[in-house]
Amino acid sequence: MMKSGIISRYRSFLPVTQRTPQLTLHEGNTPLIRADVLSDRWGIDLYLKMEGWNPTGSFKDRGMVLAVAKAAEEGSRAVICASTGNTSASAAAYAARLGLRCVVVVPDNRVALGKLSQAVVYGAEVLVIEGNFDQALEMVREIADDQGFTLVNSVNPYRIQGQKTAAFEVCEQLGEAPDILAIPVGNAGNISAYWKGFIEFHQTSRSSRLPQMWGFEADGAAPIVRGEPVEHPETVATAIRIGNPASWKTAVAAAVESGGRMDTVTDDEILQAYRELARSEGIFCEPASAASVAGVFKQKQSNELPDGARVVCVLTGNGLKDPSTAMDAVTVKPKKLPCDREAVREAIDSREGTVHGSLETL
Amino acid sequence: MMKSGIISRYRSFLPVTQRTPQLTLHEGNTPLIRADVLSDRWGIDLYLKMEGWNPTGSFKDRGMVLAVAKAAEEGSRAVICASTGNTSASAAAYAARLGLRCVVVVPDNRVALGKLSQAVVYGAEVLVIEGNFDQALEMVREIADDQGFTLVNSVNPYRIQGQKTAAFEVCEQLGEAPDILAIPVGNAGNISAYWKGFIEFHQTSRSSRLPQMWGFEADGAAPIVRGEPVEHPETVATAIRIGNPASWKTAVAAAVESGGRMDTVTDDEILQAYRELARSEGIFCEPASAASVAGVFKQKQSNELPDGARVVCVLTGNGLKDPSTAMDAVTVKPKKLPCDREAVREAIDSREGTVHGSLETL
Repeated sequence: MMKSGIISRYRSFLPVTQRTPQLTLHEGNTPLIRADVLSDRWGIDLYLKMEGWNPTGSFKDRGMVLAVAKAAEEGSRAVICASTGNTSASAAAYAARLGLRCVVVVPDNRVALGKLSQAVVYGAEVLVIEGNFDQALEMVREIADDQGFTLVNSVNPYRIQGQKTAAFEVCEQLGEAPDILAIPVGNAGNISAYWKGFIEFHQTSRSSRLPQMWGFEADGAAPIVRGEPVEHPETVATAIRIGNPASWKTAVAAAVESGGRMDTVTDDEILQAYRELARSEGIFCEPASAASVAGVFKQKQSNELPDGARVVCVLTGNGLKDPSTAMDAVTVKPKKLPCDREAVREAIDSREGTVHGSLETL
Repeated sequence: MMKSGIISRYRSFLPVTQRTPQLTLHEGNTPLIRADVLSDRWGIDLYLKMEGWNPTGSFKDRGMVLAVAKAAEEGSRAVICASTGNTSASAAAYAARLGLRCVVVVPDNRVALGKLSQAVVYGAEVLVIEGNFDQALEMVREIADDQGFTLVNSVNPYRIQGQKTAAFEVCEQLGEAPDILAIPVGNAGNISAYWKGFIEFHQTSRSSRLPQMWGFEADGAAPIVRGEPVEHPETVATAIRIGNPASWKTAVAAAVESGGRMDTVTDDEILQAYRELARSEGIFCEPASAASVAGVFKQKQSNELPDGARVVCVLTGNGLKDPSTAMDAVTVKPKKLPCDREAVREAIDSREGTVHGSLETL
């Protein structure tokens, strides 16, 4: 069978040894789907990197497989992390596969139902604290030190090493780096990882140029754009609801060195992009993921988006992670009816010709 | 870029023409993951076909991409289906991508939250009736006829044609057909499709043998095993909660012709397999999917599972489709704590050494 997973595929780019376990859930190798409707509408060549189709439904799997494999190699007895949901789901899955203990600390509100269900079903010990992500992270850093657990948040250097492989794939899928790589920014590890990946592929002559890195924070959780930590971050995009990013400096460096930018998008802009991706492209991502597309649209409106540019938006997580937001976000709700053919027929007739016409568009 | 999707990959096996739209969300090409722990425990060579990692999170995408593409080719103005959730999600996504109208009729209880959220966010018209799946299917059959909508339930012949490609992939991934293909049975289209696929690959000399087909119904929704329709089907595995399967005869034929079998599994057996897949293999599937693994375990207990057999269990849907069942099914729940480091440390210490030891095992 074909070798699968990022450790096998990109071995020469990763800090692995003969003793690193051959851990994989077949993460990576995610599709790059062309957004035909939005490409036409905006006059660009737009692609969506489908990171939500990783094994646990988010990009976190790329870094986590390496972090957990290295933890096992180093003889660790447990892994621990703070999480807004995606990190804990991923840590729990890979720890389960290797039979390692996994402890996750999550904030007590706004962790999406799907993500919480993942961590518990994979058998992690889930501790829900009356605090926010930044407090949870501070806590697990200390506990990891004291207890000798391996911290697998993105401050773990293997996480960024694994995540950079997504940039390799983008180059391989397009045959070259794109003009612009647009990405949501929360804890800021992922933009740093992509930039590192693009640089390594460029330095080893696997691509001949570098993209501009465009990072987008949610307006209510935008410490990097504002220039200071946000004590009470708020956004519908729970995966990037972070007030004091761990990879702040490297994220800024990625935007500056690449000639790119960091900007904010509002929750309304995020949800508009989220709905539009589903209705026009058939792609259901989590709200935070849509920040990349919302950001590109905002630049388009400001005449900052070059005509014909080849743009890759990273969609970081699967829409199924957060079904409640989906149900709240739609304007046309499910309609309850008796079990009667005429009632169903009338409901169908009454919608005739109105539904597609009523959609807002980006 | 590499051609993607089942229409491009398996064109010569499918009823497509020059006028069939090049529709794809990169469905198919799903991983086949070895279940190392269960293989060792049961003395077999067990693989999991990860159909829940398709674009909308279930195997339905393979057949739906073809059914919707053919509907568009034939000039249809709308697609319609009844659904326990997965079919509607898939129909809605592909219809959205082609800009076709989509109407879905679902029963008013037991459609998992994730699935309902998908249909609405993709922009389908969702009608929830006070009835069960079988009543919904009868209704949409009549409405499709009257209104000239294209019915995209599995009675649509293109659905089975598309779904058979999963059998092709299993043969390609293993280099040969397995000894046994184990699969959940609900509306019974999928077991029929796999059998058709294995036969076509065998007839064209792409594989040298055929597998036994083992189909498993939920105990409370087992019309085929019981030999008569079930008026009020009941099971936690909502995706196979069907009392009068559309593909009944072809499913029986698959089991009989292949020298295989059809059997039932209880909800307890399903949930035990569901938890075990997550905790031991790091795989989160939907409850119905676990019926395949539960069924194999039941045969093992009855000494009906040959030592060393190469077995593929089809995991039909993603666990994220049904987060509520996951939260209910686990024995170790999330623990709420104040935002206090000592409280977290105590909670961790109290679990020391107890968690992995307390797991039930298959």
